[in-house]
Amino acid sequence: MTDTHAYKQLEALFHKIHNLRHLASMAHWDSATMMPPGGSEARGEALAEISSLINDLLGSPATGELLERADQARDRLSAWEQANLREMKREWFNASSVTSELVRRHAIASSRCENAWRSLREQNNWKDFQPLLSEVIELTREQAAMRSDASGLSPYDALLNLYEPGQLSSQLDAVFSRLKAFLPSFVMHIAEQQKADVLVQPAGQFPAEKQKALAMELMEAVGFDFQHGRLDTSHHPFCGGVPEDVRITTRYSNNDFSESLMGVLHETGHAKYEQGLPRKWISQPVGRARSMGIHESQSLFQEMQICRGQAFLQFCAPLMHRHLGNGQTPDSCWDADNLYQLYNRVKPGYIRVNADEASYPLHVILRYELEQDLISGSLKVADIPEAWNEKMQAYLGLPTKDNYRDGCMQDIHWTHGMLGYFPTYTLGAMNAAQLYQAANQSITSLDEQISRGDFLALNQWQAENIWSWGSYHSTDALMQQATGEILNPDHFIRHLRERFTPA
Amino acid sequence: MTDTHAYKQLEALFHKIHNLRHLASMAHWDSATMMPPGGSEARGEALAEISSLINDLLGSPATGELLERADQARDRLSAWEQANLREMKREWFNASSVTSELVRRHAIASSRCENAWRSLREQNNWKDFQPLLSEVIELTREQAAMRSDASGLSPYDALLNLYEPGQLSSQLDAVFSRLKAFLPSFVMHIAEQQKADVLVQPAGQFPAEKQKALAMELMEAVGFDFQHGRLDTSHHPFCGGVPEDVRITTRYSNNDFSESLMGVLHETGHAKYEQGLPRKWISQPVGRARSMGIHESQSLFQEMQICRGQAFLQFCAPLMHRHLGNGQTPDSCWDADNLYQLYNRVKPGYIRVNADEASYPLHVILRYELEQDLISGSLKVADIPEAWNEKMQAYLGLPTKDNYRDGCMQDIHWTHGMLGYFPTYTLGAMNAAQLYQAANQSITSLDEQISRGDFLALNQWQAENIWSWGSYHSTDALMQQATGEILNPDHFIRHLRERFTPA
Repeated sequence: MTDTHAYKQLEALFHKIHNLRHLASMAHWDSATMMPPGGSEARGEALAEISSLINDLLGSPATGELLERADQARDRLSAWEQANLREMKREWFNASSVTSELVRRHAIASSRCENAWRSLREQNNWKDFQPLLSEVIELTREQAAMRSDASGLSPYDALLNLYEPGQLSSQLDAVFSRLKAFLPSFVMHIAEQQKADVLVQPAGQFPAEKQKALAMELMEAVGFDFQHGRLDTSHHPFCGGVPEDVRITTRYSNNDFSESLMGVLHETGHAKYEQGLPRKWISQPVGRARSMGIHESQSLFQEMQICRGQAFLQFCAPLMHRHLGNGQTPDSCWDADNLYQLYNRVKPGYIRVNADEASYPLHVILRYELEQDLISGSLKVADIPEAWNEKMQAYLGLPTKDNYRDGCMQDIHWTHGMLGYFPTYTLGAMNAAQLYQAANQSITSLDEQISRGDFLALNQWQAENIWSWGSYHSTDALMQQATGEILNPDHFIRHLRERFTPA
Repeated sequence: MTDTHAYKQLEALFHKIHNLRHLASMAHWDSATMMPPGGSEARGEALAEISSLINDLLGSPATGELLERADQARDRLSAWEQANLREMKREWFNASSVTSELVRRHAIASSRCENAWRSLREQNNWKDFQPLLSEVIELTREQAAMRSDASGLSPYDALLNLYEPGQLSSQLDAVFSRLKAFLPSFVMHIAEQQKADVLVQPAGQFPAEKQKALAMELMEAVGFDFQHGRLDTSHHPFCGGVPEDVRITTRYSNNDFSESLMGVLHETGHAKYEQGLPRKWISQPVGRARSMGIHESQSLFQEMQICRGQAFLQFCAPLMHRHLGNGQTPDSCWDADNLYQLYNRVKPGYIRVNADEASYPLHVILRYELEQDLISGSLKVADIPEAWNEKMQAYLGLPTKDNYRDGCMQDIHWTHGMLGYFPTYTLGAMNAAQLYQAANQSITSLDEQISRGDFLALNQWQAENIWSWGSYHSTDALMQQATGEILNPDHFIRHLRERFTPA
């Protein structure tokens, strides 16, 4: 076997894995949107089967040997093929650094913990939740140790690298400490200032089908391709499916249109990234999204940088009035200035997913600090509530003593051992601000285009600078090429100042 | 390895195949109900991948060896395990009797032919369709020859056995010739007689959501389990999904409620069979539905024997009036007698899927006779239209010269090489009549129960006699046990006489 032949065999293997992942993705989407309750057990088994099948294909010693052989002939590969080979190795490395036995035990414990969490959170029942979470955290620590042994990274960084390849917590610490120095007083200041605003609250009934019609019109306007995707309803909004057929979801509240609409536009940002990935490489690792931090940058670019901004709300206001305006809500509610105030309220709260743009990073930093301590062992699961309470008071002035439901039991991530994921939300927010600034400098009169509902130049800029590159570049190289520098939190801080300080 | 160990290994293998088939089934359902057009290419690839993966697992020499070893220890297996082993062998035999190379070429030709058919049928374009169909038929003949070599059956019977295990065309010939002797004149006679009926035609608009609400109420009433299934919309109605989560579909016409409603109830019959299969064996071959002829017997039992009957329409009439009665349709339309006439019109027509219960078998027999000749080689694809025209005139008095769209191009089956399938529709109709007669003899005042909407005893009878047996019995043994005799067309003929002859 020649060595380029080995590379071709790997491409065929990853093409096969892409096809199998397609079925797994669609079954996941179906579970959240369509499946009747009685179908869940069989579905769980089917998904476990395909996961283990994919893991076996991916992490096998045979794949490792092929990778070695292909590596010896890397000089004969094109630049994209070389990048693909690098990403293949990364996937193989992640799959093969932990034992299948540990993966299996981790999956079982996570599934048990997550299922219990659904009712225990409702009941504010930390006592029964704690031992289940302890088991998951223990197994996650074991996994982190194995990944650390294999990679040479610290245990926490080894987890972080699953979601944000190349990211080190030492770099994160520096960036997050800037935010920690700035945000708590900024949040308090803006929240105080906004108390004087005169705001027309939307009231009345907003039937789901009207909200959906508006959402779909806006999705189409900003460039979602309905030939390759759908919008549906699920309990927790998400972006799923495959790049060729992206499935996003939302949930509608009859009394409040605002939450669902921005949620849809957020997921649309994720979706446009998936739809814009390089078609030629779609079945290969290099054709996948770069990282969770870049993925979140695209959803927050759409939601925070564009859709909650003045220009977009000018475009959006008449459409909102047309679709939703025949309730009891007064017409002045549909004024772009009023909508801007409505969509940019700063108010410290308990719940991360409901947080405003300025408070959000503090929720993330809190979790980031606690999960580092959980992995190092300096924090015991039993002591999470106390640590949570302390940090919430310090960062947002809100005590959470005895309030587990709205405190340390609010998120699903830790129940299935996804430690190292939270930082990517704020990496995304910072990347988004930096990318928007670069786009704004490169496109003449961008605001004016947006206010007319013209997203052509902007989408083209994102396609050229982010989407079409897949995983060809590292995150740093991608940001460098798109914005002229690697991640720099100044842009995010400037964005917050501009957004929340009256002109 | 002990020999019962071999059996256990086979159970694990088929459990794995069951899990993978789950994902394939759901993806098939999604393709027909949810998928945006741009997703079809990726979906096609994903489905081809999982099919070939399943085929490789199923038809491998290793599986053959395990089967041999398990067979040597069959005395130590329970009766259900022995039946399971027999069905495992059947699945392995079907997968291993043809070469993967032929399966692949057949799949490609079928897919090409089916895709072209969608537009060529619309255009009534036989000329361009003929070479594509010829290719599929040629490859189907090759496949039939291979299966014949492996099984010792005739080539046509080898195909027929894929859908109706144990069925021989020599037996079918005898049964069908009875129907051929009886039906043509019977159909003409009843159609003539019914011309005198005074019938109130439904008119007005019947919005899809109202039809769906009625359909779901009736599905629930007759025993469809919505905890383990759904009703959705697709271009061609079908019953899909998995026994634990059965997905049925329909399509709604705004002007006519009658077609969709009986279609839903037909698919509900299929669904109840799937939902009633033995849970303990659900992942094993013995836990699957017995055959297509038995499957169709359960849908036609529901639709023809129950739902188009007087007793059911008495129960159904007030519900129909409640859901659909506020259009321009006069109230007398919702009279049970009028609905009975409406749902039992006999009128020879060109299209099989729209045919009444009495004409339907003639459509099937026509196809059965032509496909036998196609497999034997005595009929060339080029000569199908002429043969079709002759038989349609002889059986139903309708010429189809130059009308390919409503003639030999109306069905999808031959486009993907499913020769040998058509007879199972009429086997189903005959089995259904025979089973209903047995149920009626065994359950006291069945009609009265049905007219009250009480299906408990009837569903229990079907569960005990058909559903819970899965593939434990052969078709003949199943019918023998449920009705005291193997298939006997007398029951179907008597049913038709009773249904269509005024009391």
